[in-house]
Amino acid sequence: MTKIIIIGGVAGGASAAARARRLSEDAEILMLERGEFISFANCGLPYHISGDITQREALLLQTPQSFKSRFNVEVRVFSEVVAIDRQKKVITVKNQLSGETYQESYDKLLLSPGAAPVRPPLPGINCENVFSLRNIPDMDRILAAMLLNKPKHATVVGGGFIGLEMVEALHQQGIEVTLLELSEQVMAPVDPEMANFVHQVLVQNKTDLRLNTGLSAITEIPVTPAEPDATGDFTIQPDQLNHLELTLSNGEKLVTGLVVLAIGVKPETMLASAAGLELGARGGIKVDEGMRTSDPDIYAVGDAVETLDFVTEQPALIPLAGPANRQGRIAADNMLGREEKYQRTQGTAICKVFDFAIASTGHSEKSLKRLGRAYEKVYVHPGNHAGYYPGAFPVSFKLIFDPATGQILGGQAFGKEGVDKRIDVLAVAMRAGLKVQDLEHLELTYAPPFGSARDVINQAGMVATNIIKGDERVCHTDDVLNITADQFLLDVRNPPELANIGAIPGAVNIPVDQLRNRLAELPKDKEILITCQVGLRGHVAYCILANNGFKARNLSGGFKTFQMATKKF
Amino acid sequence: MTKIIIIGGVAGGASAAARARRLSEDAEILMLERGEFISFANCGLPYHISGDITQREALLLQTPQSFKSRFNVEVRVFSEVVAIDRQKKVITVKNQLSGETYQESYDKLLLSPGAAPVRPPLPGINCENVFSLRNIPDMDRILAAMLLNKPKHATVVGGGFIGLEMVEALHQQGIEVTLLELSEQVMAPVDPEMANFVHQVLVQNKTDLRLNTGLSAITEIPVTPAEPDATGDFTIQPDQLNHLELTLSNGEKLVTGLVVLAIGVKPETMLASAAGLELGARGGIKVDEGMRTSDPDIYAVGDAVETLDFVTEQPALIPLAGPANRQGRIAADNMLGREEKYQRTQGTAICKVFDFAIASTGHSEKSLKRLGRAYEKVYVHPGNHAGYYPGAFPVSFKLIFDPATGQILGGQAFGKEGVDKRIDVLAVAMRAGLKVQDLEHLELTYAPPFGSARDVINQAGMVATNIIKGDERVCHTDDVLNITADQFLLDVRNPPELANIGAIPGAVNIPVDQLRNRLAELPKDKEILITCQVGLRGHVAYCILANNGFKARNLSGGFKTFQMATKKF
Repeated sequence: MTKIIIIGGVAGGASAAARARRLSEDAEILMLERGEFISFANCGLPYHISGDITQREALLLQTPQSFKSRFNVEVRVFSEVVAIDRQKKVITVKNQLSGETYQESYDKLLLSPGAAPVRPPLPGINCENVFSLRNIPDMDRILAAMLLNKPKHATVVGGGFIGLEMVEALHQQGIEVTLLELSEQVMAPVDPEMANFVHQVLVQNKTDLRLNTGLSAITEIPVTPAEPDATGDFTIQPDQLNHLELTLSNGEKLVTGLVVLAIGVKPETMLASAAGLELGARGGIKVDEGMRTSDPDIYAVGDAVETLDFVTEQPALIPLAGPANRQGRIAADNMLGREEKYQRTQGTAICKVFDFAIASTGHSEKSLKRLGRAYEKVYVHPGNHAGYYPGAFPVSFKLIFDPATGQILGGQAFGKEGVDKRIDVLAVAMRAGLKVQDLEHLELTYAPPFGSARDVINQAGMVATNIIKGDERVCHTDDVLNITADQFLLDVRNPPELANIGAIPGAVNIPVDQLRNRLAELPKDKEILITCQVGLRGHVAYCILANNGFKARNLSGGFKTFQMATKKF
Repeated sequence: MTKIIIIGGVAGGASAAARARRLSEDAEILMLERGEFISFANCGLPYHISGDITQREALLLQTPQSFKSRFNVEVRVFSEVVAIDRQKKVITVKNQLSGETYQESYDKLLLSPGAAPVRPPLPGINCENVFSLRNIPDMDRILAAMLLNKPKHATVVGGGFIGLEMVEALHQQGIEVTLLELSEQVMAPVDPEMANFVHQVLVQNKTDLRLNTGLSAITEIPVTPAEPDATGDFTIQPDQLNHLELTLSNGEKLVTGLVVLAIGVKPETMLASAAGLELGARGGIKVDEGMRTSDPDIYAVGDAVETLDFVTEQPALIPLAGPANRQGRIAADNMLGREEKYQRTQGTAICKVFDFAIASTGHSEKSLKRLGRAYEKVYVHPGNHAGYYPGAFPVSFKLIFDPATGQILGGQAFGKEGVDKRIDVLAVAMRAGLKVQDLEHLELTYAPPFGSARDVINQAGMVATNIIKGDERVCHTDDVLNITADQFLLDVRNPPELANIGAIPGAVNIPVDQLRNRLAELPKDKEILITCQVGLRGHVAYCILANNGFKARNLSGGFKTFQMATKKF
């Protein structure tokens, strides 16, 4: 009878425990959780703060009792594992309530400790009303602070998934929000021009967005009650409830009532490291494809481990719920003698931002640049469904690929409806090894309320394939911003579009439908950089010019992409 | 200079013309359209009738003038091609307005005539107010009849895509609707138990749904004006506006005001056939992978042609907008000397039905049965997004696969949000040659408003993989309906579920969480067929029983699937 001990009862740990029991009725399975709760909906925490999820209980998916009766898994909460003796195959457990410690032996051990929110050692970081959000108690503390102090203003530090979700949650609760982001953009997995769509949504929703701005220090402003009033009560002025003063990296000061730190997480590796298990270069627990650590009887899964990046096949830290769940299942299989392999991580992710969504899979342009890897990119902005059906809204889609082979390297999308669908389709195509040349052939559901006969991904695939086949040469924002004397900038939109929407400085305007009759106005000795609104008319113009012997390139994604790539927030 | 003539100016024809021009500025391109309109949104017609698309003009995507100025393609509407002389490479065109005929020579000819609505030779089929819906004039006629006659009741004949869309459109316009469907189910591409979800939606929305019922005859009821009233006017009683009497295949009579025939389409092959071009066994124009007919200078695309079925690689008639568009593009490429291949048709399709959607890709169970092909199926009913996030609604998903290899043969889904996404993901996986064993590894976008850490497709893949690996044996509705003396039916839900939702007759109830302690109540010598609500607890129970030495099978999709498979409408 195998005795399995699982350290950590959320996501990866819980899914491993359930899977292990399904595989074996005999195994003894013990799950130890440091905190009070197992298997809670950590991705749901901001949505309870926002009020969208009304019942706190909805986040508590399993209890130790339900886990015991369903899976015959013994669960001990408030139980922190403080040491692993790998020689004796024994762990030391500390009961967090009583302070007692005791030992448990194991045959197989699974580490699923997760990752801890980064809390930089800033002056004042331990002030009251400065929070992280990782678990139910964190959430409770934030809700209690909102209830007790009724802050008028809150500050979110960090524009990742949790940061963006918290901005929206706090805004929804009627609190003014400042978002501090140290880098030039929120949502690190996407590129700056795609993040700009999110910046725009944040600003439209009254977020005080401060890019390139970090938090340097926090000080408490003493609350001074007013003079007693006629009834003898001391009234605290409401604006005194914003009682934290933040010092920002640019020297500015900001008065706020509540701070949420969402500047990322780091893998919880202290226990693994103390036990002498190998860590990887990125600071996570090193595992093989079977989720085994450097000790063959110890497995690890979830946010604490490094897994292979799908594209580079190099170890990476990608803390996501889906991979953690799959890894837990695979670790359980292997602890019980199977041979399952985790199949690398693409980093597919999505974030709701007010009425919009931003999503991505695979690598961003900036990460490929860092890696020094050759890539090309195209942008399209088609409607999420047929334009003549009510409610159509563009999905702005960026497809990144290897220009030599057509290998899909990544994709990013922004829009209202259907952003998840397009990134899912791309993620599957990428995982299956399809190339961009295959994307135009994908046969997707089409009816006017759902898509288009040539859907977003088909269109992106056609544009990319045109480049690979030499049917179109494209240029990008950098090219039209740095135009040379040998180049000529042509805008093929209709004059009212230029007047109303704006145009790239210096562009000569000839509407595409007049182009065939006005070719004489264009220089044959220069390269003509063509722009339209989204790239479609530009492609028609490109074909007209190229087939008439002109040298030309089409601005991928047109003026709309240019605008997002150059807009400053 | 190549002269290309394109017969038919919608979908395939229009996309071929535009593509041909992008490839060549020199080619002479002439597009001939029998009707008044080119490139109109035929999939949008029901949504203008419903009032969702308010502007008729929104359906007219291109005009001859816009096509000329954008693509330098000469378009002649009201121009029917009545003969092809393949030896001389000359066609005869009849001007529908003047009646004149004339000839045009071609180098390459593309046939994109589409398919015509089936109009069976029933008595009364040519009565007034009996309509088909294929094009703008058809739509105008229906709208005019609604405006003039103000019918209180309409009858839609045929429960395919257009039939279902018309039921909803007419209902939305305040008209009572009877839907006649000759077979036992609407939506032929899906199986009966999945179509039952649609039947339920129709009935809930007050559709008078009559399955297994055809239309036999139509007679006009003479309108008899009442006696003149005091002012001398003859008033027609409103109920006399339902002035058609239908005789149904079961002998019943039905009085109605408007009939929409939506009983399918047949390829328009008269011209091709008269020209001696080969037709296929299914009655469509025969083409090769390059969309070439039996005459190497004549191409054909769209609803009129047979293309290869993705799974069987046999010719099939699959009239869909997406494939028509892609075929048009490929034909244009090949007419201008390229070598592009159309990559078979999966038949991916979706239909909105009131607030719900039904979608499918690949083969149905019934079509695989007809083909005599081995298959297995699984059902799952997970939420479209995390259950704790508001608004979750199940996506009922059926996955059909080869039990020996895991090849994906087809999938069907019903639900509210996210039905399109799941079928798209499956369609891509299927086209890429992924197996059901790969589906649990797909890394899809996850945040609570969009999906689950283990999404619908992951779950379906896990269940299918369990079967292939021997980790679970499943049974289906037929098995529990035809239980033998060697079998034992076990329901592992909680007693209130059986009482409130219903149960399979004869099932013994032991809740899954009590199962380990009540194994003695189960026979070791019988095969235990397990059911729960959706199949998840049944799987846990299966594992408990199998690992304790019982012979067992789990009802795939649980009682919910059983209910839909046995419900009669």
